[in-house]
Amino acid sequence: MRHFRCVINIKNDEVIKAFGRRLRDLRISTGLSQEQLANEAEIPLSQVGRIERGEINPTLSSINVLAKALKIEIKELF
Amino acid sequence: MRHFRCVINIKNDEVIKAFGRRLRDLRISTGLSQEQLANEAEIPLSQVGRIERGEINPTLSSINVLAKALKIEIKELF
Repeated sequence: MRHFRCVINIKNDEVIKAFGRRLRDLRISTGLSQEQLANEAEIPLSQVGRIERGEINPTLSSINVLAKALKIEIKELF
Repeated sequence: MRHFRCVINIKNDEVIKAFGRRLRDLRISTGLSQEQLANEAEIPLSQVGRIERGEINPTLSSINVLAKALKIEIKELF
């Protein structure tokens, strides 16, 4: 099972990194800085940076407030 | 700010509960039991139940493996 679990983790990392890139692209196309997005979403600036770099696994509620701050539907982040 | 933060939490709870209902509807329409979905997604059965009831705030990686187990795109869960 070890190999299987390892494969899942790699795939999850790819999804987390892809989400980060998508968030960054949408933030930039909206003309917001990381700081402005963090303020609008009411989450720490450091967390926005780490999510965009795919370093942390965001929760649904973080994804929700980020989508709201970008004034988009959650599904547009995927 | 207290009221504002409280409003955000309520809105987040609504998103988490709506996600749970959506997951449950898709699982049932796919003909899977909670146990089959949990096995397929490789997450604990108790976690599937709690996510469907909107009791826990799932991470992106949990959302990802659940979508894969249902053989759908993540965005279809929103």
